[in-house]
Amino acid sequence: MEDQSLKPIRCKAAVCRAASEPLIVEEIVVDPPKAYEIRIKIICTSLCHTDVTLWHKVDPAFPRILGHEAYGVVESVGENVEGLAAGDTVVPTFMGQCDSCASCAAEWTNQCTAVPFTMGPGMRRDGTTRFWDGEGKPLSDTVAVTSFSQYTVVDVNQVVKVDPAVPPKIACLLGCCGGTGVGAAWRLAKVQPGSSVVVFGLGSVGLAVVQGAKMCGATKIIGVDLNPNKEEVGKEFGVTDFVNPSQLGDKSVSEVINAMTDGGADYSFECIGISSVMTEAVRSTKSGRGKTIILGVEKDSQPLCLPSFEFLFGKCVMGSLFGGAKPKTDIPILAEKCMNKELELEKLVTHEVGLTEINTAFDLLLQGKSLRCIIWMDK
Amino acid sequence: MEDQSLKPIRCKAAVCRAASEPLIVEEIVVDPPKAYEIRIKIICTSLCHTDVTLWHKVDPAFPRILGHEAYGVVESVGENVEGLAAGDTVVPTFMGQCDSCASCAAEWTNQCTAVPFTMGPGMRRDGTTRFWDGEGKPLSDTVAVTSFSQYTVVDVNQVVKVDPAVPPKIACLLGCCGGTGVGAAWRLAKVQPGSSVVVFGLGSVGLAVVQGAKMCGATKIIGVDLNPNKEEVGKEFGVTDFVNPSQLGDKSVSEVINAMTDGGADYSFECIGISSVMTEAVRSTKSGRGKTIILGVEKDSQPLCLPSFEFLFGKCVMGSLFGGAKPKTDIPILAEKCMNKELELEKLVTHEVGLTEINTAFDLLLQGKSLRCIIWMDK
Repeated sequence: MEDQSLKPIRCKAAVCRAASEPLIVEEIVVDPPKAYEIRIKIICTSLCHTDVTLWHKVDPAFPRILGHEAYGVVESVGENVEGLAAGDTVVPTFMGQCDSCASCAAEWTNQCTAVPFTMGPGMRRDGTTRFWDGEGKPLSDTVAVTSFSQYTVVDVNQVVKVDPAVPPKIACLLGCCGGTGVGAAWRLAKVQPGSSVVVFGLGSVGLAVVQGAKMCGATKIIGVDLNPNKEEVGKEFGVTDFVNPSQLGDKSVSEVINAMTDGGADYSFECIGISSVMTEAVRSTKSGRGKTIILGVEKDSQPLCLPSFEFLFGKCVMGSLFGGAKPKTDIPILAEKCMNKELELEKLVTHEVGLTEINTAFDLLLQGKSLRCIIWMDK
Repeated sequence: MEDQSLKPIRCKAAVCRAASEPLIVEEIVVDPPKAYEIRIKIICTSLCHTDVTLWHKVDPAFPRILGHEAYGVVESVGENVEGLAAGDTVVPTFMGQCDSCASCAAEWTNQCTAVPFTMGPGMRRDGTTRFWDGEGKPLSDTVAVTSFSQYTVVDVNQVVKVDPAVPPKIACLLGCCGGTGVGAAWRLAKVQPGSSVVVFGLGSVGLAVVQGAKMCGATKIIGVDLNPNKEEVGKEFGVTDFVNPSQLGDKSVSEVINAMTDGGADYSFECIGISSVMTEAVRSTKSGRGKTIILGVEKDSQPLCLPSFEFLFGKCVMGSLFGGAKPKTDIPILAEKCMNKELELEKLVTHEVGLTEINTAFDLLLQGKSLRCIIWMDK
């Protein structure tokens, strides 16, 4: 039975009406939360490369509202929602955690089977939308988070309660790049103290991996990037050595890394999404035990190709959504680590704009000028 | 200082004088063990597919003596050998375990860094040979085990002492296929009770994986093989379901496996060495947590190719020499499990011959008539 006291809300959202076209800030209607759902007033959101990827994609239904890295306050809850109430400060997440399925109980996976992740549009339980434009036409959501709207509706399994003392910008980043990057080093690779790590691509996720590796006690953290400015940026985050692939002459990156790490790094992270770089990442790890973690979303449609012989000698290639972290378990832990300065993810925030300037955030990211641009929803 | 009381031994060995040509049983001379080495009287050895691969290879120095899966008795020990003496029953292994380096202390690798594995000829410490033909010309060894000889010399880190009560045939199999197959399920994949497993290729290693998966408590073990006779063989070892790729019509193996396992097996093992099968093995595992273990040595020179997207959703591809098992730690444990019938590896022995009939063992394996053929060295 639905709570009839809950009404639709009129608010502003940045709507993407066609692939790769500027977003339009317009008035929309957000439905009340249904059973097991929560309506959230978004305080701030940030722009992730995945939003750009989805903005260019033509296959999902347009018009749609993008955005999946955000922080907000619970406005209202639907039937059967326990443990969350209006006023709670929360991070919505694209990954679910029901805490009752076998996968949520298992240590070796972060993929809830009760409310599985999907790229497709629609709420997780019934596949329908909660968003409507001024003419009453449906607007598609994005990974059931949809944060480029002043209000959104999210499944109860996709909401993480956070301490209101956590600064909004930090909480926001933990919803995607922070959780993914730190999680990949901490939860997925399980970086050991004293180990060597190489990170390909020092964008936001790569720099979050650097922070995660440092937090885990890695003593050699090699950053690899074609942009020479990333040497200084990387070192602020914890990179100990920097390699610019354009300055190696005849040598490949993996040859240089192997020479720097006594035959290969213990861990490599690919945070770009280019298959040839993924291959180099695998070749940069130690025979016998090197782990490669794939975080970059393939951009060039080329498969990752490796001689199987490299696996036979004990290498491992792995990936995971959200860096293998469990959102409800791990976001509060990471928030605490940010508060006590074990992690310094706020350094990722290079720009801040209001909702009406959201296209500036796209421009900055596309021009390589920003790491993370925070979008404040009430401006 | 070398022990001058130790003399060279004249004995018989099966010598491979040129790639792919029948072995010749001839009299050879085996040097005494140098410091940190052990001379072993080989009781029995068996023929592994890797011997066949090396027999066909033209790049190592010929003439050579093949063989790396064996059981024997210590004949004499060189200087600085502790804990082993003449009369001890042992399994020589191609993997070293020094028990003092950081890798031997670590749980997550089985690759000793003190005496690392290499395919190249020569003893691990000085790179020289201990084997000479009747004319005094050097004979190359094989992975520093060289068991197709009545006597061999092995590094102290490559010898595992086993209880003399363990039947020679079982001890012999644990030196390669038994340890590799069971280890891959037990130590590398860490197969969980109640899980689903698919094994591509029901040769000796594949069947040992089946035994390992059963020992770990897997409840669904799907065997995949083009040979219809393998259905019955597989079931003797613990296979619960059988798939013959030639009988699936328009469907791919991975489509069929996914349908049988609610979206994919928890673990897949490729025990053939064909890159397209490796790709199918990865596709046969569950999104979010499927592990694929590569055991087959690539036969077709084609790389393993996968869309990186499959990794992003949480899959993992891994491999390891000797199934991730540590020889000195794990062979005695596996021998005990064989003695108490938790493992029934002796079923792998389909044929037995004497040293003079060693070419028959090659014929049987090449014709697909044998799983393991034991070669008794005193016959």
